[in-house]
Amino acid sequence: MGDATASGDKVSITLPDGSVRTLGAGATGADLAADIGPGLAKAALAVDVDGELRDLSRPLPDGATVSIVKGDGEQGLDLMRHSTAHVMAQAVMDVFGSSTVRLGIGPTIKNGFYYDFDFVDDRHIKEEDLAAIEARMGEIIAADQRFVREEVTREQALETWGARDDRFKCELIAELEDPISFYFNAPAGTQGADVGADGDAFVDLCLGPHVPSTGRLKVFYKLLSVAGAYWRGDEKNPMMQRVYAACFADKKALKKHLGNLEEASKRDHRKLGKQLKLFHFTDRVGPGLPLWLPRGAQVLETLVDFLKAEQRKRGYQTVSTPHIGRLELYKTSGHWFNYRDSMFPLLGDEELGAFALKPMNCPHHVEIYKSDARSYRELPLRLAEFGTVYRYEKSGELGGLKRVRGFTVDDAHLFVTPDQLQDEFKGVVELVRMVLNTLTLDSVEARVGTRDNVSDKWVGELDQWERAQAEIIEACEEMGLDFVVEEGEAAFYGPKLDFVVTDALDREWQLGTVQVDYNLPERFDLEYTAKDGKRERPIMIHRAPFGSLERLMGVYIEHVAGAFPVWLAPVQVSVAPLTDDQLPAARELATALEQAGHRVHRSFENEPIGPKIKRARLEKIPYVAILGPREIDSSTVSVRSREEGELDPMTWDDFLGRLATDVAERR
Amino acid sequence: MGDATASGDKVSITLPDGSVRTLGAGATGADLAADIGPGLAKAALAVDVDGELRDLSRPLPDGATVSIVKGDGEQGLDLMRHSTAHVMAQAVMDVFGSSTVRLGIGPTIKNGFYYDFDFVDDRHIKEEDLAAIEARMGEIIAADQRFVREEVTREQALETWGARDDRFKCELIAELEDPISFYFNAPAGTQGADVGADGDAFVDLCLGPHVPSTGRLKVFYKLLSVAGAYWRGDEKNPMMQRVYAACFADKKALKKHLGNLEEASKRDHRKLGKQLKLFHFTDRVGPGLPLWLPRGAQVLETLVDFLKAEQRKRGYQTVSTPHIGRLELYKTSGHWFNYRDSMFPLLGDEELGAFALKPMNCPHHVEIYKSDARSYRELPLRLAEFGTVYRYEKSGELGGLKRVRGFTVDDAHLFVTPDQLQDEFKGVVELVRMVLNTLTLDSVEARVGTRDNVSDKWVGELDQWERAQAEIIEACEEMGLDFVVEEGEAAFYGPKLDFVVTDALDREWQLGTVQVDYNLPERFDLEYTAKDGKRERPIMIHRAPFGSLERLMGVYIEHVAGAFPVWLAPVQVSVAPLTDDQLPAARELATALEQAGHRVHRSFENEPIGPKIKRARLEKIPYVAILGPREIDSSTVSVRSREEGELDPMTWDDFLGRLATDVAERR
Repeated sequence: MGDATASGDKVSITLPDGSVRTLGAGATGADLAADIGPGLAKAALAVDVDGELRDLSRPLPDGATVSIVKGDGEQGLDLMRHSTAHVMAQAVMDVFGSSTVRLGIGPTIKNGFYYDFDFVDDRHIKEEDLAAIEARMGEIIAADQRFVREEVTREQALETWGARDDRFKCELIAELEDPISFYFNAPAGTQGADVGADGDAFVDLCLGPHVPSTGRLKVFYKLLSVAGAYWRGDEKNPMMQRVYAACFADKKALKKHLGNLEEASKRDHRKLGKQLKLFHFTDRVGPGLPLWLPRGAQVLETLVDFLKAEQRKRGYQTVSTPHIGRLELYKTSGHWFNYRDSMFPLLGDEELGAFALKPMNCPHHVEIYKSDARSYRELPLRLAEFGTVYRYEKSGELGGLKRVRGFTVDDAHLFVTPDQLQDEFKGVVELVRMVLNTLTLDSVEARVGTRDNVSDKWVGELDQWERAQAEIIEACEEMGLDFVVEEGEAAFYGPKLDFVVTDALDREWQLGTVQVDYNLPERFDLEYTAKDGKRERPIMIHRAPFGSLERLMGVYIEHVAGAFPVWLAPVQVSVAPLTDDQLPAARELATALEQAGHRVHRSFENEPIGPKIKRARLEKIPYVAILGPREIDSSTVSVRSREEGELDPMTWDDFLGRLATDVAERR
Repeated sequence: MGDATASGDKVSITLPDGSVRTLGAGATGADLAADIGPGLAKAALAVDVDGELRDLSRPLPDGATVSIVKGDGEQGLDLMRHSTAHVMAQAVMDVFGSSTVRLGIGPTIKNGFYYDFDFVDDRHIKEEDLAAIEARMGEIIAADQRFVREEVTREQALETWGARDDRFKCELIAELEDPISFYFNAPAGTQGADVGADGDAFVDLCLGPHVPSTGRLKVFYKLLSVAGAYWRGDEKNPMMQRVYAACFADKKALKKHLGNLEEASKRDHRKLGKQLKLFHFTDRVGPGLPLWLPRGAQVLETLVDFLKAEQRKRGYQTVSTPHIGRLELYKTSGHWFNYRDSMFPLLGDEELGAFALKPMNCPHHVEIYKSDARSYRELPLRLAEFGTVYRYEKSGELGGLKRVRGFTVDDAHLFVTPDQLQDEFKGVVELVRMVLNTLTLDSVEARVGTRDNVSDKWVGELDQWERAQAEIIEACEEMGLDFVVEEGEAAFYGPKLDFVVTDALDREWQLGTVQVDYNLPERFDLEYTAKDGKRERPIMIHRAPFGSLERLMGVYIEHVAGAFPVWLAPVQVSVAPLTDDQLPAARELATALEQAGHRVHRSFENEPIGPKIKRARLEKIPYVAILGPREIDSSTVSVRSREEGELDPMTWDDFLGRLATDVAERR
C-alpha cells in the first residue's frame, strides 16, 4: 500500500494557510480533519494531497501539502457526482439483477454524470425504468454504504475479471499500470479495507477517490435519459446503454438546470420544424433526407440569397455541378480510397464504369478549374456552389437536421498562389464573422489544426506548411478572432481552421471549416502560368464556413427558438381585419406589403381577432397588422410585434418603413 | 397491271380548268401532256390523278381528273427530291460497291431528303466521302437513266429480298399489301417496263412515283452530313447511317438554305458554350452531365430568379427535396415499373432497401402533400421546385444541352379540386407566354393531347376526362393560344398540353408540358377535407412549361446566337480606360455600376482600346464603357452598344439609367 511514508513515527503536514501540523505516522485524511476540528471532520469528503485528490481513509505522506475537500466547492461536487454514479450503477444492478449487467465507464460530465451498461440478456432500459433506479439510489444512500478501495496487481485483476468473462473490464485493465484499484461498497458500520468484497457487494474498476460513504452524498439528482453509445465510442464495438443523470449539490441548481433542459427540449428543432411546418422526414424518401416544406424552403432561400450576395461582393463566382460523377473521378481525387465508407453505394457496376453520388463538391470544382488554361491573372479563383452532397451516415446516428444523409454545403474552392493564402484566409474569417453576427451567433471560437509532427503521413513541402500555419495564426490574430491552436489536428493534406459557435442555451456547435490543400492540385495536376511564364501549381483552399446548411438551420432554429427575425421569417406579416367590413382595406394593405417585397399571410377568416392573433403567435410571425373601423377612419394600422407587443397605431407608410428597416438591417 | 380501265377504246380525262379531253385507251400521263402541247410534254414530270400522284408512264383511268405536275411547284419539287434520293442511294452503291450496301428508307424532308444505309462490311461513310457521292450523282443524272416501276405480289417480293438476305426490306414488305411496287433504273433509250432489272441495276422498294428519267432532275443539291439513326427509330434495332441532303429547284434557294445552316452551325450552342465559357462537359464527370461555368451559372441563376419571382406572384410555393429516394417510393409511384429503363442504376441492392436517383420530382412533392392533413381551403396548393433530376439516356443520344442525363426541371405540382382545373390551366398558359415573350421566343404552339379512344389503358373517370379536355381546349381558346388537338396523344393518366416554340432560324423545339394526373393521387391515396367535411381526392397537375432548363438554355443560346440581352448577360458592361491615367475614374465607374447591381468586367489591362473592344465583342458583352481624357473632362462616358454601335457620349447617370431600364424591361 506503498504511500504511507512515515519518517519515524510522525508525519508533518502543511495546510493551505501555510501552517504545519504533526500527526502520528499512518494518519489519514480523516485523522487530519478530526485533528483540525469536529465540524471539519463531519464535512470532509476527501483530501487534496499535493494537487491529487485522495480518499479520506488513505494515510497521508510526510511533508505533503494537504487541503480538506468539502461538498461546497467544484472539487467536492465533482467527487460527489462520481460517487453518485457508482450508486446509480449499483442501483441498476440491484433493479435488474447484478449477474445480467456488465459495466462500461461512468465518468462525470458538465452538470452530472453518465454510466454505460451492457445486459447479457439484451434488456433495454426504458424511460419508465428510471424512477425505480432513482428510488433504489435513495435506499443505497440512506444505507450509508462505505466506499472501500482495494489495490491488486494487473495479473490478479485480469484473472478476477477474466473469470467473470467481462471483456470490457479486461480491455481497460490491460491498458493500465500496476497497481490496479477497485472500489467496492461495504455495509455501514464495518471497518477498514480488510472486510473484503463479498460476492454481492458492488465493485468496479476505478481510480477513485470517493466520498467515505454513500450517506455523505448530499446531492440532488435526476436521471434524464437512456441513449445508445458504442463501447469506447467506436461503432465497430457493441452498442451499450448510457444512462444520463443531472446531479447538483443544491436543489436550486438542479431545478435551474432541468429548466434549461426543458427549454432546450421546447426549442428542439425537430419539434419546431414540425410545429412551424419547416421540414419533414418520411421513411418512403429515407431517413436523414429532409424535405423542405414551403416555409422552411423560404428561410433557406433567403439565407442562401444573403450568403450569395455577400460572396459575390467578395469576388466569388458561382458555378453549378451535377450531383454525380464517374467513379474514375473519385479514384483520381482519392475519395474512393479514403472516404468510401461515407459514400452511398455506387450507381451501377464498378467494373462497367459506375457513377457515384458525390460526397463532396471538390472534384467537380477541380474539373472546372481544369476546363481552361489558367493564368496567374485569374488567381485567386474563387468557385462557389451551394452544392448538395450525400453521405451514407449510419441510420442510428441520424438526428433531425444536425446529422443528415443529404445536405447542402456552402462550398467554395479557392485556387491561389502561396502569396495569396493569408489574405484569402482573412477574407474567409471576415465573411464568417459578418454572417454569424447577422445571425446573432456571435460567440465564435476558431480552432487552428496544425501539422502532426509525429506522423509522417502528410503531403506538400514542410516550409509551405510552416508558412501557411504561421499565416493562418497571424490572420486570426489580426482579425481579433478568439482561437486556439490544436497541434497535430490538421488533415494530412494541409492545415485547417474550424469554427465553433456557442448558442443561446450555452451549447457549443462545430460548424464549418477552412482547409488548405496541397494534395488535390497534385493529384489532378493543376497548373497556372506564372508571371514569368513558368507553369506553377496552385494551392487549393476548401472553404465551407457553415459546413452544412441543414445543420446550421438545426442549430439556428434552436438558437432563436423558431422565432426567425423579420428578414428571415417565412411569413413576415399577418394582415388581420377585425370584421369583414375591413376586407377591402386589408386586401389593399396586403398587396402594398407584397409589392414592397414582403411575405404576407392573409388572415381573412370570418372569426374574432383573438384566435387570429393567437395563431400568428403560435406560428411565430413577427407582426400582426390589424385593421378595424378606427384604423380605417384614421388611415392607420394597429401593429402587434412578436417581440414588443402592441405598438402605437401608425400610418401604412410608417409600417412599411419599419419593415423595410427590419429587412435592410437584418433583424 | 390493273388500273387501265378503258371503257371501250377511249378514255375521257377532265383537266383542272374543267375542259375534257378524250384519248385512246391505255393513254398515259405522258400521252396527255403531249396531247396538250409539246412544251408541256417536255416540262411534265408526273400526273396528279384524282389527288394521287402517279408516274407519267402509267395509263390514265377513264373519267379521272388529271393535272400535269411540272418542276416549278411544291409537288414537283417534292417529286424531284424523292427521285434525287434514289439517285443518291444508287451513287452510294456505285461508290462503295452495291453488294456491301443495304438500303433503309429514303424519304423527302423539309429542304431536301435523307437516305439510311447499312454496310455489311461495317464501313462508315465519312464527311470526305460525300464529294465522291455527289460527283457520281452528277454522272447518273447526266446518264438520263429511266425510272421504271415494277409491281409484284408480296410473296414474290419476300422471296426476292429474302434471297438477298435483306431483313430491312423483308420487314417492310411484310407490312404492305399487294401489289408491292419497286422502282429500278434502266439505261437511257430503253423502252417500257419489260426491259427488266438486271443484276446491276439500282432497285428499291418504293411506292413512287418518280420523274420519268434522271435527266429530268433539274435540281441543285448538296450532301450535308452523315449521322447515326436506328432502323425505324427504335434503339433496340441496328444503327444505320443516314446521309442528309439539301435539294432545291433553284440555285438561290439552295444557297439561302446553306447560308441558314451555316448560321445555325455558328450558333451551335455547344460551340458558343465553349467560346463564351458558359458550360463544360468532361468524361471524368460523365457524358450528358454539364458543369456550369461561372458565366453560364450566372445566366441560369438570373433566369431562375426571374421564374421564381413570377411564380411567387402567382401563388406558387417553393419546396426543396433530396435527389434520391427509397426504391419503395418509386414502387408506390409506379415509376419503377413504367420508367425503370430511363432511371440510373440503383444505389445499393434492391433487396436490401436500395435508393434511386430521382428521375422526376413528383413523388417527393406528393410526400410533401401527405406531410399534413389538407383542407379544401389550402387548394389549389402549388408546390414548385427547380429540381434536378437524372435520367439514364443512352450515351449515343446525348447532344450538348439539348439531351442530357442530369437536368433541372422548372417543376411544379398543383393539387386542385376539379373546379379549379380550368383556371389553373389558364394560369399556366399565361405564365408560359409571359416568360417566352420575355425571352423573345414568342412563336408558340400548344398541342393538346386527348384520351386514346381506342385503348382502354387509361385511369380516372370518363366524365372527368371529358370535362378536363373540354376545359383545357376552352382555356387555350380563351387565352388566344395557337393550338392543335392531337387525339389519343394523352398520357394514360390524364390529358396534357405540350408547348412547341419556333426559334430565330425557323426551327421547332418542343419544350415543356402540362399534364393532368388522376393516377398518382390514387396510388398515394391523397385526400383533402371538402367544405362539406367529406374526404375527397385531389387532382394533380404536373407542370414544367420549359421542361428542362438545360434544354431551354441550349435552344435560347442558339436563338440569340449567344448575345444575351442585358438583363441576362453574364457580364453587362466592360469598363475600359483609354490609358492608365483614367484608371481611378474607371474604378469609380465600375464600382458605381456594381453598386447599382450590374455585372461588370474591368478591362484595365495596359493596352490599346482596340483589342479591349474586340474582346468585348467576342464575348458578346452588351456595353463597353470607354473613359478617355475627353470623357473625364466632360464628366461623361463613351458607350459602345453591342446592338447599336457607338452611342453619343452620355453622363454617368444617363448610362446608369439606360442600364436600369434595360434590366427592368428585360431586354
